[in-house]
Amino acid sequence: MDNILTRRSIRKFRSNHVTDEDIEKILRAAMSAPSAANKQPWEFIVIKDRKILDKIPEFHPYAKMAREASIAIVVCGDTRRSDDRGFWIQDCAAASQNILLAANSLGLGSVWCGVYPKEDLTDKFKELFNLPKEVYPVSFIPIGYPNEEKPPSERFDEDKIHNDKW
Amino acid sequence: MDNILTRRSIRKFRSNHVTDEDIEKILRAAMSAPSAANKQPWEFIVIKDRKILDKIPEFHPYAKMAREASIAIVVCGDTRRSDDRGFWIQDCAAASQNILLAANSLGLGSVWCGVYPKEDLTDKFKELFNLPKEVYPVSFIPIGYPNEEKPPSERFDEDKIHNDKW
Repeated sequence: MDNILTRRSIRKFRSNHVTDEDIEKILRAAMSAPSAANKQPWEFIVIKDRKILDKIPEFHPYAKMAREASIAIVVCGDTRRSDDRGFWIQDCAAASQNILLAANSLGLGSVWCGVYPKEDLTDKFKELFNLPKEVYPVSFIPIGYPNEEKPPSERFDEDKIHNDKW
Repeated sequence: MDNILTRRSIRKFRSNHVTDEDIEKILRAAMSAPSAANKQPWEFIVIKDRKILDKIPEFHPYAKMAREASIAIVVCGDTRRSDDRGFWIQDCAAASQNILLAANSLGLGSVWCGVYPKEDLTDKFKELFNLPKEVYPVSFIPIGYPNEEKPPSERFDEDKIHNDKW
């Protein structure tokens, strides 16, 4: 529970190396998300190549921190493995959230940069990675050792809770 | 991390009461999710009323377990608080995932029943709770003490990992 409450969006990173072991743990967490009809429509591009990490802020206006991050993960949805009810987007969002939480539990920082359904952004990612036409990038998540400290957020708001009726 | 890996969809519940304290913890976790531009477009309907819990499986084909659940949470997105880039669905999905994980960490079971974007289901929820037209139900999550045991799932699949390129 503490892991959920202490996770914050980290946009400043130290240059320390993220190990392959930690990357695998993070991806294991991502794939432990639930998905509609257990279709697991997700695919993950792990970016370690500095040239690719540097290229993404050239077209994504909120991804400048990629230049500092050790790695990034692009969570993609393969609509060929979706059941046509449109739940694949939420499946990929659940996997993305698990990535953020897993990173936090390993002492790493991360930030979820939205991609889908912004067409200009999805097109750029599709082009950069030459994705099959049925595969859509949903989120772009830079990861690294935090170079900033943030207290738990205070987002709890009782006004957003409705008891048995709106 | 263990919390993420051990979470499973629980569809059988004991009749034990879920405390208000635990419900608040779960909602605190939900509201700790990230959201695009920090818009926090989520709203939560907590259903404790047995009559309402029993009514939902009458129109939702995959929500029969609501009849056994102690409570359920409907995660809704208020599109008036969205920034029009369509990220509110993923924001609500991240909050939903936090609900599942928080429940698991408290020894509770839960299951994510998809609602949005299935129009027939969203219409029924909107009608049942008389939601403002800009508010959409995204997920329906029955919660209770588990009456089934499931080992961690083995969904890890190396073929879904792409290194620097597709």
